Formats: sequence, structure tokens, C-alpha cells
Amino acid sequence: MKNIGKKSLKLHEKSRGKMEIKSKVPLETCDDLSLAYTPGVAEVCRMIARDSKLANKYTIKNNTVAIVTDGSAVLGLGNMGPLAALPVMEGKAILHKKFGGLNAFPICLNTQDTEKIIETIKLIAPAFGAIHLEDIAAPGCFEIERRLQNELNIPVLHDDQHCTAVVVLAALINSLKCSQPIPCRSTGQAYGLKKQPINRLTTTKIVINGAGSAGIAIANLLLAYGFKNLMILDSQGTIFSGRKNLSSEKKQLAKITNRKKINGDLLVALKGADVFIGVSKGGLLHPKMIKLMNSRPIIFALANPIPEIMPAAAKKAGAFVVATGRGDFPNQINNVLVFPGVFRGALDHGVKLITQAMLIKAAENLLRLVKRPATNKILPGVFDKRVMPAVAKAIKN
Amino acid sequence: MKNIGKKSLKLHEKSRGKMEIKSKVPLETCDDLSLAYTPGVAEVCRMIARDSKLANKYTIKNNTVAIVTDGSAVLGLGNMGPLAALPVMEGKAILHKKFGGLNAFPICLNTQDTEKIIETIKLIAPAFGAIHLEDIAAPGCFEIERRLQNELNIPVLHDDQHCTAVVVLAALINSLKCSQPIPCRSTGQAYGLKKQPINRLTTTKIVINGAGSAGIAIANLLLAYGFKNLMILDSQGTIFSGRKNLSSEKKQLAKITNRKKINGDLLVALKGADVFIGVSKGGLLHPKMIKLMNSRPIIFALANPIPEIMPAAAKKAGAFVVATGRGDFPNQINNVLVFPGVFRGALDHGVKLITQAMLIKAAENLLRLVKRPATNKILPGVFDKRVMPAVAKAIKN
Repeated sequence: MKNIGKKSLKLHEKSRGKMEIKSKVPLETCDDLSLAYTPGVAEVCRMIARDSKLANKYTIKNNTVAIVTDGSAVLGLGNMGPLAALPVMEGKAILHKKFGGLNAFPICLNTQDTEKIIETIKLIAPAFGAIHLEDIAAPGCFEIERRLQNELNIPVLHDDQHCTAVVVLAALINSLKCSQPIPCRSTGQAYGLKKQPINRLTTTKIVINGAGSAGIAIANLLLAYGFKNLMILDSQGTIFSGRKNLSSEKKQLAKITNRKKINGDLLVALKGADVFIGVSKGGLLHPKMIKLMNSRPIIFALANPIPEIMPAAAKKAGAFVVATGRGDFPNQINNVLVFPGVFRGALDHGVKLITQAMLIKAAENLLRLVKRPATNKILPGVFDKRVMPAVAKAIKN
Repeated sequence: MKNIGKKSLKLHEKSRGKMEIKSKVPLETCDDLSLAYTPGVAEVCRMIARDSKLANKYTIKNNTVAIVTDGSAVLGLGNMGPLAALPVMEGKAILHKKFGGLNAFPICLNTQDTEKIIETIKLIAPAFGAIHLEDIAAPGCFEIERRLQNELNIPVLHDDQHCTAVVVLAALINSLKCSQPIPCRSTGQAYGLKKQPINRLTTTKIVINGAGSAGIAIANLLLAYGFKNLMILDSQGTIFSGRKNLSSEKKQLAKITNRKKINGDLLVALKGADVFIGVSKGGLLHPKMIKLMNSRPIIFALANPIPEIMPAAAKKAGAFVVATGRGDFPNQINNVLVFPGVFRGALDHGVKLITQAMLIKAAENLLRLVKRPATNKILPGVFDKRVMPAVAKAIKN
């Protein structure tokens, strides 16, 4: 890890920023200038002034995304402010181009006030085709996304929430396929090892550790897909209806998860669980906790850069499938599999509001790219060229 | 002109936006991703969080400019709003890269409220090395620039004002060199045709038609250089001390120009004038007006795309030097000669406030690139590779 950090510093210093803006049109002669700039450009301005939709035809708008952060929840590093978040936003921007063919530009906001963030994004929106919210802490991120989805006429999505949720859902279904037959989404029915029909959407006990933006969104998408048996923990332990200190998003989830109102810590929550999804902190999952889980436990240790448990230790403790957010272990659960396709799809198909149904479809398209999931191969690789089109196809009205 | 408009529309449609964002680092392997993005990037974020100055070393910040408009004064087209301004901003952005090597990104603001513009620019500033204000109408542009120069710690400059003023000053001095010896800046003394010492800074009578952002800035820079005999006209005629309907910027100028308080229109103003500088509207200057001027009149007809008078008509009426904003006539006075160097110089030299003294120096460096000015060659060409470095050199503390 230290070595990667050093190498990364060198790369950043050498490049002085990882992205650059280039002209797509020739600028070699006075004639070139008179077409790309004045006087020729005046006619383009006049056309757009008459019909604003023509901006999609004549400008960067419809293939350009603003990646907006307030720096309040940068990677797993916490509240570092807008400037220290810039290297991450640049990284996201070049991944948008690499995997989705979109232009993306970092907007790092010098405020963490929800109202000011909303107002600013609305004011800078005209030149963008979509708003990609990134590394904004809960609970502000929920309000910001909801309000902007209502108040802007371009798609707005908080990547850390929904793109993470999509890749987790896809990974979970394929992991379950490894252990036993996959539940049918319409009925939930599946045949278990003893050829008895079982409803794995109901029976699979899922524990989500971490109730930040990703944890909340994962829970909501799994529920929307049809999973019934969820338990979510925040820093104070299990979330249940009636508990103190619940944000409105947690209250909402408390109504439909942990129905037995089990009050306890991770040890208590994991007893008899089938799935652990960690979006919390490095090292939090002790091997002995895995031993409390059901047979063939599925472990998604997604904290970055240090996962909740290292894959080798999880395997040793009996984990059946282990996934992390990292590319240097098998089963990388990274939202880079999702965000380029989601934004590309929304822009190509004129989608103004990206719905849960679209995101579920995106997860299904993604997981189907792995024909025969295996415990060390639950998702396609990041460089698999089928991924972006498969996801983009799902984001359609 | 119609043909250029059609060709320009085609170019814009084909390119779907004139600029694109590209990665400067390899993204071909998982190792590449782990350096450009997570986990490697975390170390870069940590460094910047500890010392914000390191953003200049590791990110795009110090070679990236925001081109901000509210669309209130687009080219010569007027208030077209932020979206219709986008093609111009994209054009400006690719010229920044072509001539100055800087990244520039268009920010089109969905407001024309001065306070909201100031607030928004302050909030998006962290990832930018400088703010290039563009196509913002007077008088809002003055307040916006002044306030941001005070309230941000990066350079802020309104291109339409100052970069236009620089290129006009350079063009004026070289035009005067064509007609008679150039005044010495320190003493104003020069020898006229009869070998009598005359002070051309005092004697040259300059009429500026148009008191928008460019007209005001040109007047201020010419005064700062040492020219004494200016008369400025707005849509109501000559500006003089005590006249009604004067903005604070015009009031300021009224104190030190048109000291005889001549009250009249352009016809009145041009009697005995040496120089006409038009930043007004196409076709406003009638040939008979040129005949009222002094011998060897200098005509800068800078309205775009239609100049105040066409060069052939001006020449026929007796003009000695004629310049326009267009590239299809000799003597193009275009701020593309200036803005790439000004911003590049400010960023390279860590300049926070671009002063009048620096801008005068930039004009002097620019005009010196033409060793022997002639009536049809008063400025270097747009593609002259010496231009940007010469201007950039001047923007230094």
C-alpha cells in the first residue's frame, strides 16, 4: 500500500493533473478560427437562443457531466474538504471518458451547506448534461440528490449511493448463485440443495454494516429487488424502529428491516446471517464473527483502501465468497463497473430521472455477463468491454 | 458571412461540442487504475489536506481556468442567456489550450444577479487556478470582477474589458508610429514632422464610441498609459462631468475625459479627432464623419461581426490606419492575442492580482513584436508563436 501511494504521488506530480482539455476541431488557420470562434460561432449561438434543445446538437452539453463534491466524505478518508478531494474527482473524470466515452469535469465546492450546494449546482447546470454527485456525506447527500432531481431537468445521481448499490446487488445475486440456485425475482422461489422450494429472497439474512450513503442505498436497492431479511448497523449498533438518534432515512429503513427489533452490535447481528456487507471501516470484521454466521457465508468487505477483513483471513474463517473494493484481490466490487454506463445510458436515452427499476435492470444486465459465477469470479472485470453497454442499456424510460 | 455561419453550424454538429476531456495518464491495467484512482490516490488527497499548496503540484488546479459567463453580453449579440453562450465559451476554452497551453472549462451560470454570480464563482473556485470572466454585461461585470479580486485568492480577470484594452493600446501605439514618431511614455515628448517637440500623449485626440465593458476598460488603460485627450460616448452621446444617467464607472471617467464638457453626438465628438475607437454597433460610422477628423485619422472599427465601418469605405473616406475585430481584413484587433498569455503568465508567475501596470507592459511587449509597423500591419498575427510568451512575460509581480 505504501508503495502504491508513493508511485501514485510520482504519477500525479509528473502529470500535474490527470486530465486535460483538448480541441476536437482544427485551429490551424484564420478560417479555422472563424468557424470555431467568431464570427461563425454567432450563428450557432442564435440557433440555440431560439431553441435550447439544439444545445445537445451543437455543444458539449449532452456528453458532459459535472462531478460535484463538497469533499465531506472523500473515499474512506472522511471530510477532507473540496481541494483535497480534487485528485479523486479527476480520477472519476478520466474513468468516465475511458469507460463511458463521456466528458466529465470536477466541480469542488467550497461549502458543506446543503442549501448552498443545491443552489450552486442549479446555477452551474446549463452547460452540463448530467450531475454526478460524489463523495458527499450523509445525510446531506440524500436531501441534495432528492431536491436536485426535482428542481433540475437533467439527470442527477449520487454515485456513492446508487452505483455502489447496483454493483453490490449484482455481486450478491451471483454469489448466491454460487452457493445455491438463484431466486426468481417474480416469485422468489428457488430449489435448494434438497430440491425443496425455498424463497431465498425471504430466507437470505443480510447484515449491512455502515449506514452512510452507500449502506442506506444498498439496503434500499436490495429491498426494492425483493430481499426481505435485512439488518443494518450504524456506529451505535443495529437500527430498529423506535431507536434513538435515527435520521429520516434510517427511520424509513427501520420500518422494513430488523423487524424483530434486535438491539445489539455486529456480533449479535451476524448470528445466523448469510451475508455480510461492510461499508464501514477497515479491520472491523473479526474472523470469529464469520464463524457465527450461517454455512457458506458471503463476505463483502468494501471499506477502502483497507477492507473490513482481508480476503485470506475471511477464507480461513470459513467465508464462501469474499469480495472487496480493491483490484488486487479477486471479486472487485467497484462502482466503476456501473457509473460510466449509468450516465452514458441516461444521456443517450434522454432519461431525466434514473429510477430504482432502471438500476435493478442495470444490476441484472451486469451480473448476466458472468455466465457461470464462481466463488472467485462473481462479476465481470473492470476492463470487460461488454460492461458499459450492458449497464447503459438498462437506463432507459 | 452567411456562408461562414452555415459552415460553422456544420462543424459544431459534426463535433458535438468543440472540446473534450482526456486522460493524461495510462488507464490500461488494474495497476494503472490503482495509481490514478483508488487506492493510490488516497495518498495524494492526504498530502493536499495537509498542505493545500500541493494542489498546484499534484492536480489540474494551477493550469486550469474557469471561463465564467452569465450570457448577458454574448459577442455582439447581446443578452442570449447562459446556454446560447456555450459555443462561445467552448471556443474560448480551446483557444486557451491552443495558444496558452492551459485547460479551460466553460461555466455558464443560470443567473444574471450580481450577488449570486459572485457567490457561485467563490463556491466553485477551489479546483481552478484562475477565473476568466467572459461576456458579462456592464455595469455588473465591474462589481463582479472587483469583488472577486478582493474575495478570492486566485487571479480574476474580465477578458472583454482588459484583454481588449491591451490589444487596443498596442494597436494604437503602433498606428501612431506609422503616422508620426511615437511618444515616449515617460515624458510624452516626440518630434513631429516639422522636428518640433510635441507631446502626442496630450495632443492625440481619441474618441471611444461605446461605454460598455470594453469601452470603459479601453479608456482606463489609455489614461493609465498617459493619453490625456479622450472623449467617450454611450448611447446618449458624449460623457461629461455632470451629465445625467452616468454609472459610477462613467462618472469616474467623466472627471478626467472630455474636460471641455462637450455635449453632443458622434458627429460633434469626431470633429478634429485623431483616433476613432468603436466598440459599439455595426455600421455606425459614416464616411462623412471620418472627413471631419484630423489628417491621417486612425479608425478602429471593432464591433463584431459587422464593424462600425467596412475597411474599404473607411479608406476611401481618408482613413490612414483601419483595424477591425475580424480575421478576414488586415489589422485584426482581437483579444485572442492577449488572454492566453495573460492567464498563462499569471499562473506561471503566481500572480494573484493582474494590475494595470502589468497590462501596459503586456501591450508594450506585444507591439514590439512588429519591428516596423505599417498601416496594414500594426499587430502581430494570431498564429505568431512569439505572442503568448511575450504577453505572459509581462504578467509578473
